[in-house]
Formats: sequence, structure tokens, C-alpha cells
Amino acid sequence: MRILVTGAAGMIGQKLVARLAAEGHVGGRPIAALLLHDVVAPAAPPGLAAESVTGDLAGPGAAAELAAFRPDLVFHLAGVVSGEAEADFELGYRVNLHGTLALFEALRQAGSHPRLVYASSIAVFGAPFPEVIPDDFHPVPLTSYGTQKLMGELLLNDYTRRGFLDGIGLRLPTICVRPGRPNKAASGFFSSIIREPLAGREAVLPVPREVVHTHASPRAAVGFLLHAATLDAAAIGARRNLTMPGVAVSVAEEIAALGRVAGEAPLALIRDAPDPAVWAIVRNWPTRFAATRARDLGFAAETSFEEIIRIHIADELGGVVPRPAS
Amino acid sequence: MRILVTGAAGMIGQKLVARLAAEGHVGGRPIAALLLHDVVAPAAPPGLAAESVTGDLAGPGAAAELAAFRPDLVFHLAGVVSGEAEADFELGYRVNLHGTLALFEALRQAGSHPRLVYASSIAVFGAPFPEVIPDDFHPVPLTSYGTQKLMGELLLNDYTRRGFLDGIGLRLPTICVRPGRPNKAASGFFSSIIREPLAGREAVLPVPREVVHTHASPRAAVGFLLHAATLDAAAIGARRNLTMPGVAVSVAEEIAALGRVAGEAPLALIRDAPDPAVWAIVRNWPTRFAATRARDLGFAAETSFEEIIRIHIADELGGVVPRPAS
Repeated sequence: MRILVTGAAGMIGQKLVARLAAEGHVGGRPIAALLLHDVVAPAAPPGLAAESVTGDLAGPGAAAELAAFRPDLVFHLAGVVSGEAEADFELGYRVNLHGTLALFEALRQAGSHPRLVYASSIAVFGAPFPEVIPDDFHPVPLTSYGTQKLMGELLLNDYTRRGFLDGIGLRLPTICVRPGRPNKAASGFFSSIIREPLAGREAVLPVPREVVHTHASPRAAVGFLLHAATLDAAAIGARRNLTMPGVAVSVAEEIAALGRVAGEAPLALIRDAPDPAVWAIVRNWPTRFAATRARDLGFAAETSFEEIIRIHIADELGGVVPRPAS
Repeated sequence: MRILVTGAAGMIGQKLVARLAAEGHVGGRPIAALLLHDVVAPAAPPGLAAESVTGDLAGPGAAAELAAFRPDLVFHLAGVVSGEAEADFELGYRVNLHGTLALFEALRQAGSHPRLVYASSIAVFGAPFPEVIPDDFHPVPLTSYGTQKLMGELLLNDYTRRGFLDGIGLRLPTICVRPGRPNKAASGFFSSIIREPLAGREAVLPVPREVVHTHASPRAAVGFLLHAATLDAAAIGARRNLTMPGVAVSVAEEIAALGRVAGEAPLALIRDAPDPAVWAIVRNWPTRFAATRARDLGFAAETSFEEIIRIHIADELGGVVPRPAS
């Protein structure tokens, strides 16, 4: 099996590549070759021969170079995040829309007809929302990022219907707890209020604690991608874009879960500092999803926010719950 | 007022331009300059100074040339129709998607911030449908044409939200009765079964007479475009794409209306010749629309199919109901 990963240097990309390297196969098919692409050089995974290509996917010839690899499986994760796509209009369209257009078109022309797993986002939905968003809720994005991701979904569905790709789009919920430094996603605080206090650092909470949002761990996100890679196309049907499941909790519940896992001390490091600019974005975000189709197709996320925190501790902190200095 | 019309040589484009020329103003603002664009040279309207530009909107520099005109009002009608976009994948994406992308982006960069009226289509919707399709029904196109039109809608909404355009997208129902020769739209028979018998020629009906579909006359379509040109943006709100009203009738009801208007003789010229290829497309088409938002905003179509036939006779046949040779 020949696998191409775009956005391979990103947080999810790195974790996906590490898991591919650790397992050596996808759905029982050995990985014969792996091609990694990103705007910065992706790290080569240990134990698996991988080539890498660095550059702008929307640039002349870039997508054709990737398509010439003739992948059987593509994970298209490359993208500029929500905050950045809103701040830099041209960059967002270039990467998220034109990069996707270029990749799909190059794959069509190369004719290797890969299964293509596309990282979309719940940002395709815009307010007003019902209490629980059903799978057939009409998407009206309220950000450029959501617009670009939804245009990619439509393209994926049409390229699949026409027989050029075998695409599956996954509307990922907010991935939490993100390791490392904050990125430019407006949703970053959902992670930082867990990650930073666990590391003994202060975190700022820019929205009211009543805000409800849906989360899945980075480990669950990689699980979604790998499950989509091997899913029976006949089971999916004509609507190739699926809202992924997750854990819907309020910020207050997030914080209570942190207290149950790591004690009361980290909670004092969360500082409420309402930010009208962040709130203006977050107040239009969806809260809860039915995700019925995805669950029926076997996509599984965590079942509690405590589990999400414990996965962060296991995968990022060596399994050690930090103890407050006494 | 400076007005740009793309697709000006098309059926609706020609009728729009003729009406602009006849009225000399839009919403009371005199037309100072008119620029017409199409892939073939649009006819200059009588009584109004108009420039015209011929070429491929997605070609290098083409959209920038149009944007340099600095329009206050744009009617973006250019497009490859449904049957052609399905038959020629590359042409459909080039004209319907990349032409639209190029135009919007050139207008953004030129900065004249026009009101832009975009001809979208009910093809953005795909089966299965409820009996009456509400305004917030989720669009899942089942054709490349519908996909391309919906991508344009999303772009229009985002460019408007960001303040680069003041866009309104109109999801037009099937325009009926189309004058002239059939085009490559799969919906062409809805018109030809009226137009051809009225002209004493045979027409082929490729689908069952039970098929229900929503129609508006070419005159109503021009009315939609002009109403959208002057509508108060504050009244529209953030969701800038509107499903237009129309007359929902079965093919049998169409034919009965023809009988009431023109007598029984033309009806004998309609030959049922089921075509599985056409049926495969048409059976997934939407039937009835609520069009509540559009009606509330003052968009008005005909109220009966007889009225649609009488408009065809008035506008195309000099007001004369043809009499069968006795």
C-alpha cells in the first residue's frame, strides 16, 4: 500500500505518521511506501521508509508531483487553521481551497483512484443551531475556514461520485488536549486550560464557563482517520462527508474533570479573562452533534472528558499525573 | 450606475440586457455604463451605450479586465448548463467554479464593492427530499453543475461577510418556457413540450407525466435579478443565498394548461418516449419549494402554469396563440 499524507508536519499528521510507522500496515495491508508533504519538512518516522516533499500544495506542479507517487491511500490533512484563515484571507483560500482543488485534480489526472480521507471540520456549520445538530443539518459556515472546508467537502463528494477518487470527509470536532504551544485556532483555549495548568502554568479562559463544545482526543482523531481509510465504501453511500462523534461538555465540566483527575491545585491556574473577539467567534460555534451516521459506521470517540484528559497524560506526559509542589 | 453582466449572450442575459436598455435605470438610478461579457459576442442593446468583452472568464487577466470597469452592480449569469457540466467535467469546473472564483477575486482586488447578483440553481439540492423543500434544507448536490453552483454560493456568502462584495445568490427554478432551440440542460423538455407544439412541431417527453417540478418564466427570472439588484441588504441578513419561488406542477398539469390556452391540437404533438438517461437525472431533482424567505423579501413568480404559457406567447410569439391549421 502506497500512502500519501499532506499536512504531515502538523499535530495530527505527526501522530498519524507515528502510528502508521508503529503498525506497519493499514487494515492488514503492509505499507510499501509513504510520502509525506507539508510546508515545513515533516519528521521521518522511525522504522518506516518515507520520502518527504516540502512546499506549497497550490504551487505550480506541486500537486502533480504528489499524484505521480500514485498513492492507494491519501490522508489530506493540510490546512491553515480557523484563526489564521480569518486573519489572512488570501492564505486561507490558497491553502485550504486551492491546495485541495490542485490535489484532487492532480489525483484525477494521475488516475490512481485512491481512497482519500479528508480532514474537514465542524466549522462547516454556522449558528443558529438546534440543541443537538443532526447529520442532515444544513451547513452555513460563518468563517472563511468553514467555507473553505465545506467547498472541499463538496468537491470530494463530486470527485467521488464521478469515480475519480474514493473520498471520505471527516468533520472533526475540536481536538483536545492539543499538545505543544497554542496554534492560531480560535478553539485553542479548550486545550490550554487543561494542558497549561497540568504543566504548572497559568491559562487564560476567554469565554464564559457555560460554553458547551464537542471534543475528541488527538488519539481519537487518528483513530477516525485510520477507520475511514479501510471503511467499506458501499456502507457509506453517496454522502461522503460525516460528522464525527465526540464528547460534548461545558467549560465548567472540563474544569471539573481536570479537578477529578489532577486535584484542585491546577484549577487555580485558570484565569477567567473574557475576550470579546474570541467570544464573537465562539458564540456562533456548534455545541452538540448527533453524529449518528458516523457512530453507525463504527467511528468511536471518548465517552467522557476525564478520558480525554487521561489520554493526554498517557500520550504526552509519560502517564504521570503531575503533582502540585507541596 | 455602472453595470457588468456576465453570460450576457445567454437566454436570460439577453432578456436582462434588453430590459435594462428599455428602462434605462435600476431602482431609479440611471445606467451610466454597461459592460457585457460572454464567450460569444453579446448583442448590443438598442438605445443604451454598452461595451462588450468576449472570452473565457477563467482565463489569465480576463476577470481583472472586467473588474477594472469598477461596476456598482454585477449580474453574474455566466455558466455552463447542467447537462454540459456533467458531460464535460473540465469545462464545467473551469467556467462554473474557476470563472466565479476569478470574478469574485478580481472584484475584491479592484475594491469597487458592487452589489453582485449570482444566478445559482435549485440543482444545489439533491434527493432524498421532503414533499416541500424548506429554505434551510441541507444542500447535497448530485451533479457537478449543482456542486459548482453551491461552491459559488458559499464563496459569495464569505466574500459578502468579509465585506468584499454585497452578494445575493438566487437559486433559480427551471426557467420555462425557454425560447429558441434546446440547450444542453437536462431540463430542456419541460420547455420543449410547450414551445414545440405551439409552433406546430413534435416534442419528445422523456419522463413520466407524473413528474412534478417547479418553474418560472424567463420574464420572472429577469424580475428576480432586478429585484435582487436593489434589495435592502439589511433585510436579507447573513444568509445571502435564496431559493426563488415558482409554479410547482406535474408534466400532466403542464400539458393540461397548454390545452386550456391553445386548444387540444398541440397536445397530439407531444410524444412520450421514456429515456432512462434523462430519467436517471430528473428523478433526483427537487419538486416543490417553500421559498418563504424569497417571498417575504418580495420576489414574485407566476401563480399558474397557464400564466407561464401566456407569457411565452406574449414575449416570444407576438401575443398570438397559434391556431391549428383547419
